[in-house]
Amino acid sequence: MKVDGKHYRTIWLKEGDRNVVQIIDQRHLPHSFVIEDLDTTDKTAAAIGDMHVRGAGLIGATAGYGMYLGALEAAGESTSEGFNATLLKIGEKLKSTRPTAVNLRWAVDRVYNKVKDLKSNSEKIDTALDEARKIADEDASYCRMIGEHGVSLIEEISKRKGGGRVNILTHCNAGWLAFVDYGSATAPVYEAAARGLDVHVWVDETRPWNQGARLTAWELGQQGVAHTIVADNVGGHLMQQGMVDMVIVGTDRTTYTGDVANKIGTYLKALSANDNNLPFYVALPSSTFDWEIRDGVKEIPIEQRGDNEVKWIEGLDEKGKQGRLLLTPESSPAANYAFDVTPSRLVTALITERGICGADEKSVLELYPEKKR
Amino acid sequence: MKVDGKHYRTIWLKEGDRNVVQIIDQRHLPHSFVIEDLDTTDKTAAAIGDMHVRGAGLIGATAGYGMYLGALEAAGESTSEGFNATLLKIGEKLKSTRPTAVNLRWAVDRVYNKVKDLKSNSEKIDTALDEARKIADEDASYCRMIGEHGVSLIEEISKRKGGGRVNILTHCNAGWLAFVDYGSATAPVYEAAARGLDVHVWVDETRPWNQGARLTAWELGQQGVAHTIVADNVGGHLMQQGMVDMVIVGTDRTTYTGDVANKIGTYLKALSANDNNLPFYVALPSSTFDWEIRDGVKEIPIEQRGDNEVKWIEGLDEKGKQGRLLLTPESSPAANYAFDVTPSRLVTALITERGICGADEKSVLELYPEKKR
Repeated sequence: MKVDGKHYRTIWLKEGDRNVVQIIDQRHLPHSFVIEDLDTTDKTAAAIGDMHVRGAGLIGATAGYGMYLGALEAAGESTSEGFNATLLKIGEKLKSTRPTAVNLRWAVDRVYNKVKDLKSNSEKIDTALDEARKIADEDASYCRMIGEHGVSLIEEISKRKGGGRVNILTHCNAGWLAFVDYGSATAPVYEAAARGLDVHVWVDETRPWNQGARLTAWELGQQGVAHTIVADNVGGHLMQQGMVDMVIVGTDRTTYTGDVANKIGTYLKALSANDNNLPFYVALPSSTFDWEIRDGVKEIPIEQRGDNEVKWIEGLDEKGKQGRLLLTPESSPAANYAFDVTPSRLVTALITERGICGADEKSVLELYPEKKR
Repeated sequence: MKVDGKHYRTIWLKEGDRNVVQIIDQRHLPHSFVIEDLDTTDKTAAAIGDMHVRGAGLIGATAGYGMYLGALEAAGESTSEGFNATLLKIGEKLKSTRPTAVNLRWAVDRVYNKVKDLKSNSEKIDTALDEARKIADEDASYCRMIGEHGVSLIEEISKRKGGGRVNILTHCNAGWLAFVDYGSATAPVYEAAARGLDVHVWVDETRPWNQGARLTAWELGQQGVAHTIVADNVGGHLMQQGMVDMVIVGTDRTTYTGDVANKIGTYLKALSANDNNLPFYVALPSSTFDWEIRDGVKEIPIEQRGDNEVKWIEGLDEKGKQGRLLLTPESSPAANYAFDVTPSRLVTALITERGICGADEKSVLELYPEKKR
């Protein structure tokens, strides 16, 4: 998507240096646009764990490129077994950074499985890079397809309202910044805007890390899409008063039975949509499905992050300098659960790269028959 | 309640100067404890409108004392009619500061009606002060009674858990800082702690003004009550995972039919309590009832505040100085609805100074039979 009119992806191999991967360090947005060089797997693990990059698809793509950097680091090994053992260890390091993100495990395993049976180190390295690129390209193309399927839902509402404004609420950032391009939840919105529909997005601030206020608002603004930031508390009132037509969110892991792990607070918006008879959609590429877990509420591990993310906040001071402030009594403890699980009964439908389906095992497996067991 | 071990109310007449009312300027909490002098009705209106004081009971008590300051300002009038006209105008000014708060209108009218038929200005002034004090004293004693009734609900859960910890979630600040003393939602908690029960409070941060993170956490800390601050997004997950036993919130206006206007986001927590079969209680003194409005969701006016409260945040910087930070893209708009309405069907019971009752017209009127028409 565009930044100040120029096209970017969220991750790419540095021009002229195939030992360096570049990312947008999202911790500095929306106040400054900073590009970071990743040239070791330690830096890559830190970039994921400390949220320089975040979001289902981008975590996966970064893990893919991280495994390529891992292959470069494993090149000192003299046997294929040694190479594989080192790469496996690096994969475990990458996987441990964000326990809820299913794309992370998926991308690490995908690259590892592709290279493990190859003989020479140089072949392994080339293939790792090739696979990392494929993961990124697939992510972008799947998101574009999610947009093409999802836009029909917006068009339908627009038609019902006689071409009037369609108000869409979203939580967190499942935009292009969370993927390689287009985004999942935002892809239908960008497609609708491209088709000339009148769309407006209610952007949940998304405490404590403010992905909505910082990232979603910024990227919608960069693409010229009408939007309004609201505190996370506001969505229920908006829905109750007829100011929301639909909800679209992304997900960090969705079970094949339709339970949706997403940024903390998603469940509350799903309850509210349900109480007000509004459709609640979840957009995801197939890489975000968990094909193992049946009961998401009971079984998906929920990451707990440091209490400092709740007690302190970052932003731009009145002199235009980035700073941080303490929001709470110094001595009060805080808890920081990063995700929650929305049970499938509250999800109207899933929007995937293959089409739209119900949030239940039968519908999901109809779209992905190769996953039937 | 106690501040650094010393007893305070939230509003009082200055010792030795009966022309000055003193309040705690709550904008500086939790980082500094600042006492402010109010000696004009303009200052009083600003103190309410700009939230130096906030919360149902304290807004009422401040409005009561504001009407006393208004009587002092009206003392220049030579006739009773002139005095009344001036005081009425001051009352309208005070009422316009916070449209959702029913205690505000109630306190203004109560003082005005008490003084309007009195002859001499000095009689009017003395009576206004007397009535303002009565409003404050009543508020404190009603909150204490709410605590005595409400504690039974906590004791019951404690008993069921064999004396184990009772986890209570609250939203916003309905603590002693929102009243004159004790608080509404916190009164049962303080009473439970005084009786030696093991209570722990999940404190919703309460964006955008952070009444929970700033005020509720501070006052619970000052009284030594165990608590943990969480982002507003977290409550649903906590309830879903069995980490909450009950919810108690306050209210800015509750209809006699049981619809509850309270800080924005309350409705989402009520939905979540309902979805997880947890009791959702609303604590209020009778001054917070609206005896006119039947349908709270449709008819209670919802205050909209400036977007700067969403886009900017205040706190303490690393050098210990208070500062503010921009959280969003400069150019992104924000909306700031300050309250929402929780329909009575989601409210388990109301805790009032007269006892506990269902959130429905019949039950409310059984407790307040003098309001039957």
